[in-house]
Amino acid sequence: MVVEIADFKVAPEEQALFCEQLQRGVREVLSQAQGYLGHRVLACSETPSRVVLMVDWRSLEDHTVGFRQSPAFAQWRAIISPFFAAAPQVEHFVASAN
Amino acid sequence: MVVEIADFKVAPEEQALFCEQLQRGVREVLSQAQGYLGHRVLACSETPSRVVLMVDWRSLEDHTVGFRQSPAFAQWRAIISPFFAAAPQVEHFVASAN
Repeated sequence: MVVEIADFKVAPEEQALFCEQLQRGVREVLSQAQGYLGHRVLACSETPSRVVLMVDWRSLEDHTVGFRQSPAFAQWRAIISPFFAAAPQVEHFVASAN
Repeated sequence: MVVEIADFKVAPEEQALFCEQLQRGVREVLSQAQGYLGHRVLACSETPSRVVLMVDWRSLEDHTVGFRQSPAFAQWRAIISPFFAAAPQVEHFVASAN
């Protein structure tokens, strides 16, 4: 299992709307991707221009190849990218055993 | 419920050891704090100097007042701060409804 953390920068006054769009994008597109296991949309309290999306994937390739190289990726970006104030920063993580 | 995201920078060769120390700190100190609900320790694949800790708190004050202003905070920092290559970046988030 791999965790994607995507850090988004948006206009502060659009933080709530962007969270709604992310949820819509997950519902309509991302959650249909092979290997999608779950997600969280997080609105930053201290920095209203910041939104974090965490996605649990079965494997790194499910995200980087299966999803990003599928037609669904364009649909996903069409829903969320109009809000971008900067390019999102995306990295992958391995959860250490609790 | 509030989510803390703490972004740590450590020496790349100490990433795994730092994750173990974080888990020890959570087990021995953080998880005893009032309002602690759960956590995740995440080791970055692309940037081996990066580790993210996510903590679910019942409220913002449980973290910023109850925990940070208690003697437990010094114990916590004593366990993890020897590994810091820079000051951690910590912010709080509200999870949007899925």
